[in-house]
Amino acid sequence: MNKDLRRLLQEVAAGSVAPGTAFDRIVNKTSDLEFARVDLDRPHRTGFPEAIYCPGKTPDQIAHIAEALASAGQTVLATKADEKAFESVKALLPDAEFNELARTVVVRASDTPTLAGQVLVLTGGTSDLPVAEEAAITAQTYGADVKRLWDVGVAGVHRLLARQNEIDEATVLIAVAGMEGALPSVVSGLADVPVIAVPTSVGYGASFNGLAALLAMLNSCAPGVSVVNIDNGFGAGFMATQICRIATQSK
Amino acid sequence: MNKDLRRLLQEVAAGSVAPGTAFDRIVNKTSDLEFARVDLDRPHRTGFPEAIYCPGKTPDQIAHIAEALASAGQTVLATKADEKAFESVKALLPDAEFNELARTVVVRASDTPTLAGQVLVLTGGTSDLPVAEEAAITAQTYGADVKRLWDVGVAGVHRLLARQNEIDEATVLIAVAGMEGALPSVVSGLADVPVIAVPTSVGYGASFNGLAALLAMLNSCAPGVSVVNIDNGFGAGFMATQICRIATQSK
Amino acid sequence: MNKDLRRLLQEVAAGSVAPGTAFDRIVNKTSDLEFARVDLDRPHRTGFPEAIYCPGKTPDQIAHIAEALASAGQTVLATKADEKAFESVKALLPDAEFNELARTVVVRASDTPTLAGQVLVLTGGTSDLPVAEEAAITAQTYGADVKRLWDVGVAGVHRLLARQNEIDEATVLIAVAGMEGALPSVVSGLADVPVIAVPTSVGYGASFNGLAALLAMLNSCAPGVSVVNIDNGFGAGFMATQICRIATQSK
Amino acid sequence: MNKDLRRLLQEVAAGSVAPGTAFDRIVNKTSDLEFARVDLDRPHRTGFPEAIYCPGKTPDQIAHIAEALASAGQTVLATKADEKAFESVKALLPDAEFNELARTVVVRASDTPTLAGQVLVLTGGTSDLPVAEEAAITAQTYGADVKRLWDVGVAGVHRLLARQNEIDEATVLIAVAGMEGALPSVVSGLADVPVIAVPTSVGYGASFNGLAALLAMLNSCAPGVSVVNIDNGFGAGFMATQICRIATQSK
Amino acid sequence: MNKDLRRLLQEVAAGSVAPGTAFDRIVNKTSDLEFARVDLDRPHRTGFPEAIYCPGKTPDQIAHIAEALASAGQTVLATKADEKAFESVKALLPDAEFNELARTVVVRASDTPTLAGQVLVLTGGTSDLPVAEEAAITAQTYGADVKRLWDVGVAGVHRLLARQNEIDEATVLIAVAGMEGALPSVVSGLADVPVIAVPTSVGYGASFNGLAALLAMLNSCAPGVSVVNIDNGFGAGFMATQICRIATQSK
Amino acid sequence: MNKDLRRLLQEVAAGSVAPGTAFDRIVNKTSDLEFARVDLDRPHRTGFPEAIYCPGKTPDQIAHIAEALASAGQTVLATKADEKAFESVKALLPDAEFNELARTVVVRASDTPTLAGQVLVLTGGTSDLPVAEEAAITAQTYGADVKRLWDVGVAGVHRLLARQNEIDEATVLIAVAGMEGALPSVVSGLADVPVIAVPTSVGYGASFNGLAALLAMLNSCAPGVSVVNIDNGFGAGFMATQICRIATQSK
Amino acid sequence: MNKDLRRLLQEVAAGSVAPGTAFDRIVNKTSDLEFARVDLDRPHRTGFPEAIYCPGKTPDQIAHIAEALASAGQTVLATKADEKAFESVKALLPDAEFNELARTVVVRASDTPTLAGQVLVLTGGTSDLPVAEEAAITAQTYGADVKRLWDVGVAGVHRLLARQNEIDEATVLIAVAGMEGALPSVVSGLADVPVIAVPTSVGYGASFNGLAALLAMLNSCAPGVSVVNIDNGFGAGFMATQICRIATQSK
Amino acid sequence: MNKDLRRLLQEVAAGSVAPGTAFDRIVNKTSDLEFARVDLDRPHRTGFPEAIYCPGKTPDQIAHIAEALASAGQTVLATKADEKAFESVKALLPDAEFNELARTVVVRASDTPTLAGQVLVLTGGTSDLPVAEEAAITAQTYGADVKRLWDVGVAGVHRLLARQNEIDEATVLIAVAGMEGALPSVVSGLADVPVIAVPTSVGYGASFNGLAALLAMLNSCAPGVSVVNIDNGFGAGFMATQICRIATQSK
Repeated sequence: MNKDLRRLLQEVAAGSVAPGTAFDRIVNKTSDLEFARVDLDRPHRTGFPEAIYCPGKTPDQIAHIAEALASAGQTVLATKADEKAFESVKALLPDAEFNELARTVVVRASDTPTLAGQVLVLTGGTSDLPVAEEAAITAQTYGADVKRLWDVGVAGVHRLLARQNEIDEATVLIAVAGMEGALPSVVSGLADVPVIAVPTSVGYGASFNGLAALLAMLNSCAPGVSVVNIDNGFGAGFMATQICRIATQSK
Repeated sequence: MNKDLRRLLQEVAAGSVAPGTAFDRIVNKTSDLEFARVDLDRPHRTGFPEAIYCPGKTPDQIAHIAEALASAGQTVLATKADEKAFESVKALLPDAEFNELARTVVVRASDTPTLAGQVLVLTGGTSDLPVAEEAAITAQTYGADVKRLWDVGVAGVHRLLARQNEIDEATVLIAVAGMEGALPSVVSGLADVPVIAVPTSVGYGASFNGLAALLAMLNSCAPGVSVVNIDNGFGAGFMATQICRIATQSK
Repeated sequence: MNKDLRRLLQEVAAGSVAPGTAFDRIVNKTSDLEFARVDLDRPHRTGFPEAIYCPGKTPDQIAHIAEALASAGQTVLATKADEKAFESVKALLPDAEFNELARTVVVRASDTPTLAGQVLVLTGGTSDLPVAEEAAITAQTYGADVKRLWDVGVAGVHRLLARQNEIDEATVLIAVAGMEGALPSVVSGLADVPVIAVPTSVGYGASFNGLAALLAMLNSCAPGVSVVNIDNGFGAGFMATQICRIATQSK
Repeated sequence: MNKDLRRLLQEVAAGSVAPGTAFDRIVNKTSDLEFARVDLDRPHRTGFPEAIYCPGKTPDQIAHIAEALASAGQTVLATKADEKAFESVKALLPDAEFNELARTVVVRASDTPTLAGQVLVLTGGTSDLPVAEEAAITAQTYGADVKRLWDVGVAGVHRLLARQNEIDEATVLIAVAGMEGALPSVVSGLADVPVIAVPTSVGYGASFNGLAALLAMLNSCAPGVSVVNIDNGFGAGFMATQICRIATQSK
Repeated sequence: MNKDLRRLLQEVAAGSVAPGTAFDRIVNKTSDLEFARVDLDRPHRTGFPEAIYCPGKTPDQIAHIAEALASAGQTVLATKADEKAFESVKALLPDAEFNELARTVVVRASDTPTLAGQVLVLTGGTSDLPVAEEAAITAQTYGADVKRLWDVGVAGVHRLLARQNEIDEATVLIAVAGMEGALPSVVSGLADVPVIAVPTSVGYGASFNGLAALLAMLNSCAPGVSVVNIDNGFGAGFMATQICRIATQSK
Repeated sequence: MNKDLRRLLQEVAAGSVAPGTAFDRIVNKTSDLEFARVDLDRPHRTGFPEAIYCPGKTPDQIAHIAEALASAGQTVLATKADEKAFESVKALLPDAEFNELARTVVVRASDTPTLAGQVLVLTGGTSDLPVAEEAAITAQTYGADVKRLWDVGVAGVHRLLARQNEIDEATVLIAVAGMEGALPSVVSGLADVPVIAVPTSVGYGASFNGLAALLAMLNSCAPGVSVVNIDNGFGAGFMATQICRIATQSK
Repeated sequence: MNKDLRRLLQEVAAGSVAPGTAFDRIVNKTSDLEFARVDLDRPHRTGFPEAIYCPGKTPDQIAHIAEALASAGQTVLATKADEKAFESVKALLPDAEFNELARTVVVRASDTPTLAGQVLVLTGGTSDLPVAEEAAITAQTYGADVKRLWDVGVAGVHRLLARQNEIDEATVLIAVAGMEGALPSVVSGLADVPVIAVPTSVGYGASFNGLAALLAMLNSCAPGVSVVNIDNGFGAGFMATQICRIATQSK
Repeated sequence: MNKDLRRLLQEVAAGSVAPGTAFDRIVNKTSDLEFARVDLDRPHRTGFPEAIYCPGKTPDQIAHIAEALASAGQTVLATKADEKAFESVKALLPDAEFNELARTVVVRASDTPTLAGQVLVLTGGTSDLPVAEEAAITAQTYGADVKRLWDVGVAGVHRLLARQNEIDEATVLIAVAGMEGALPSVVSGLADVPVIAVPTSVGYGASFNGLAALLAMLNSCAPGVSVVNIDNGFGAGFMATQICRIATQSK
């Protein structure tokens, strides 16, 4: 970005760009809806468009943010969405797709790149599927190649060991688990790639809505594990995609 | 106990026991020191003598409680003891033994039974040794046969799988771990006997002094795991011994 | 298990088992549904089949997991189940039984053994019944002999003392209590067998959904108490059954 | 107090009291040291003088507050005091007495009344003594008749039942316990008088410095229990004395 | 109670009571319903009958416990009751009265004594009324004289000071407040009688369902305050009644 | 206020005010409804009338408190109100206005002053709007000039930097944010006026209903930030108005 | 700042400023020490220089940051400083002053303005003095007029009411309190200016190192209260000064 | 690994490997010290040798584990080490290097590869240096190219924007911050590579030893952030190195 700034200042000095225009370029790159300031510059800065976190937004607001992104040629990804949000988006963007399990609404930009590497998503149990699927959909939407490995929790560690092959082939792992959240620790001890741990709110009592799994994952005795928020499949999928982009760019 | 009461009342009716004596037997079976009421009836009720939890007690108080127990022919086991407590006990009971790692002081009663079965104590890491040793010493003191298996944490799950033989031979397992506390879940999936989980305060940051391990163990996705207090090696050793006694009595 | 591995390798060396077959036996013993990897090897490893924790699973998923277990001749036990889950299972397995209070669905394998010993389940109050009943049903399903003793909370400690006989006869106790969770401490002081403590979410305000009872039980001043998750009647019943199996095997 | 105000206003109207004097009486009744505003009016309002909580105050500050109270003929009670605080007070008030166990410094006013009724202080274990003794000293200092009953914790409930006589004779009970804090619940079920529960920080691990005992006591299933802060023997002794004063005044 | 036991043993010795009868009297004084063990001996031990905490009990269970108490001539007080519980009780006990605000169902025993003294219930705000009313109804039901003083929170401390007269006349105060829970501290500084503090779950955000008020009350800088559980109006009313009984007995 | 008291006492001394009248003036300035004690003196003491916090109050209670305030010529502001509360108020006060987003009901007093300065309300995201709007409405209702700047969260810090002009012109800033609550820290580093931080409950998982944002704001490394309760737009708007009044009075 | 940017771009366009120089002005205004990046631009942006938070920094680091600030003609204020930090600063800046109670090191810039208005700092008790003094020193250092009012806690609310005059004269109040933290609520009900609440870690047990006071202050039922971190006297003093600057600028 | 297993079984079948040898290879690859089971197979499985977490281990234990690793030609990295641990290691391994700030002891294997890409470590403030340096040393030790950027906290966001160049050049970012922990959110909005967030325990009061920063980072509104344990510089450095290895392998 600094390079852009230097060039812009030189253009101002050269008279090829007016000061007022330069000012606008420096301070102004958002699409202002009444209720939101869509950050259309984000792909430039961070490589990915802004995603829409649905809770607390009306279906109408979601649809208009989605439209602002799509108009700018950017991929739309709305998370924690419900049926109503989807219908509202679909009315404006007919290509929108809803994944009921993952609770995502997606309109993929046509120029989405195909990334190198492979993301392997593992879950501790069947109840962790919605969060795991959110991670998988996120990574796929942004161009990554994703494999799924469901229900390989640590109570039957042989189920996991039996899939060493898939672990060996992955570029990055996403380990999704609730309850005691031990999956990332065990997985990380079997893998030579980064493990992104996603605690889920699956459990009851002293699970405290995912706190137990979160703390366990943060305290993993196996290094190479980093953690995202409880139930934050999107965040894990996003980070995995960034890592795949490194693999892509390094080629 | 109710059988005792029925018999006692019949003896009162028969005149062979005076009412005052009966009253005393029903309500009174403790050794009153000035500062403590040593529960000498506990072996009768619970099968084991009272143990001495040292913190908050002066060396002098510890020594006198120890003496009251020893005088009644009962085993002395003082936990979380330091050097001073040991010396104070040793002055009164020269047979007292101090285990510096486990922080225990022991004077074993001569009639301690030898129990059937085997207790296997496992630790996640080297830093968990003091708590694990407290568990092991406790079980040994009360008559159990104890095996130790140190440093088989889940980050290298093959270290644990390599010891399936020892797991298969145990009557009851004590799994001691700090940090993410995942050991009991993995162990329980490999064993067909009860696993007593002991969270330790080993760790830092979001371990919150053992809270992370405690919550993880309570949320174990593998059944057959129950949990004692953080760093409570004594409690785990005690319960394991009770289970060995069931094995003994069932013979 | 290691014994099996040694034998298998000898058979490979002897040519009686092909390497590919050996490979499959070592790494592969699960029934793969689309959404779940049912661990059919668990009875071999842990002595009991996998149970089904219903929350977060659809009725359909529950039914298919149940069917996979039943097809393998294993007992089906689904916990925290509702009416819909039951109906879905019953459509596939007509022998399924629903316990509305305990919220369990059960299809018992015909070869379930009858275990030695006796499990005594105690509750602090009437509101603890659903959790206590889940514990009782679990133990019965797996072959244990179970007695129930309801509403003997510590506010009227004489109600508990009056039942010393039942306590004396038990092989293992399950003490279920909410609110201040004091029942296991008092019970353990009256018993010479292990006490499995189950905190319940019964209470309000500073009970924090069972946290108060959980912490109290973990801090029991009476040894011989270990604790399972809040409302985890299943876990307690399971562990009690393991202990009864020790009594059975030691005969 | 309103009676005083009405009378004062009438005196102003009658000219027997000047407005300025009345103003002072209404708004001004404190002894201003540089660092503290000693509330000498408190006995008038609340029946007892202000007590001195020592932590965070210098020995010098403590001594000067003590002197201000003593000069006004009021009883001095300093809590959580150490040797230095005591020496500093003694230099100004030679009658000051230090109780090392309870960590109190006391200079009793000569006109302290003798109160009716009896306060019975019970502890769960020997480690709870310092807090229990603070409660006992507080009640005695303010004129109550106090009995002590140490080490009657719930792990040996017979020790407590054996002392029903003493419980029956008390006007108010103070139950002091750490760990699982179950003593007040059991005691309250045996008594027909109020039980003031004092959680102590005795314990480790999931005791969380007394939090477990505090929560347990707040959730007591036996009514008639109210709770003061962790380790707050002073507060319990104070409230017990107020109750004894009701017994005294009702005579 | 010990007096009863001594006398009973003497009667056994004298032959006037058979051993079996004595045994029953010692260990057996409860009314056993299928799901509950109603503690009919409680008035004898604690001066008040058992109350019924409704949540977690079916309307049918509540009604049968109520009937067991009423049949024994004891007062029925059911708390946190709803319309359905009331109707179920009323079907068996037509005199039952429902207080919708306090959520209590009451059937008062005809021989309830009239107690000396006065209970003053204060609230911080209008939203605290349900809990305050539960306290007031409880005390009235058990025979106390109760006054109510609503909405005198500390944001307008003059509202409270204006009622010093009522404070001066009370035997015991119940201060009910949510949010910052400061009312008991201020009230206790104006009163020379015990203050029972009841935190309520009124508030939002960092109130954490009453935790803020609870902690504030436990840390009151004014002594003479003790605290019951969040929203536990019943507990406060019960304890206030016990204090009034002391005033009554001391007459 | 002391000035009023001095003058009043002089009038009593002069005979121009009767003692009884003086007494009433000193202790009595509230409007007593059956369920509430409306503090009509508050504008005199604090400059603003009492506001109505709706949760826990019936629509009827809300309407009568509103009427008592309006009758005294004071502005009515009811917060966290719903449709029903609004209708109930409107039936008594037809000028009442409902803001559905902010959940406020307002009846503005005709003599509300126009304050100097400007309040700038910023939000991190669209989901924070309801709380931000509550802050804005509150400040406007009490006479402040309010500007809104929505959706300038720190993930796109350029959106915020682009609005430095608006920040420079404000007298006081209200920064409303959920999730990681970083907005106030960044804003405060760009502003030379006070920042009132409002954490919102927007977020999920380890947001713990706004706790994460609250803690972050309290730990702001940028000084000049102070914090109100989670979701407490009203409190922030109120304090901002007080600061504008300082600007007004200093003119 | 945007005005500066517009002007700068016009100067670049006019050729009076080189692009490289403009670039540096836009992105570069810090003093880079090896271990710190002193933000010398802060007075320009926020009106006050950067302060030095000492914990975690070596005396040497503190001294060099102080020197960097002083060299730029800016006021030095180091907080939570100890003797060693002071000496290290004094060696480089001989005018440095240490306040032992407040733990501040100050070197005041000669051009510090004198601000209008008055800051009144109140404490609940003597133990709160260090934090209160930190607030007072901070405000004085930055040019505010500060008054102190110590030990007016709510247990003797008359002490506070007696000082209504001082409250009436203040422009902004800082209320410092530990334990139950009720002071700000009561004060705010007596004042028509903003109250900045500072919870202190004074207290024990369920104070949880100031958490109780913090939560209470956040839940204040009196509006006009905002809160800074526990023991953060600096933050409160800083914000109070900002408010006084508004009073100054509005003149 | 499965490939290894298949090949091994074929060798057994072919008779070129004895069954016993195969057994050993499958289950046994650790170096057994008396107190530890050093996992020498870890580089094979995870690409990096086991690191030594020092707390809870004696200097002697640390030294022997270090020696076991070095003997196997593996890099030694001991974290949270003190002077004594270093000296103990140095006695056995004279090449050991101690970094006092980072508290690391390192003996680098001669064949450590040089990795592609660049790790940029940023800190919020000077007090975060020890943790940041631990991250940097870890990454360097394992072969990564590391750049440091200290003291760019969000209170002066321009300091960070001024370094956009360095951010643009990095392959992966490590953002280390205490207090409100906002740095990763802001950084992630400026970067198109993964951000590993490290909360530190820097702060006081409501920082709760790093909990505030941890929660903030987990709730980052900017995606592409994942989090390790509080003060876990090692974990962050390790994961960053894994990502650099992906960049290396993809070349």
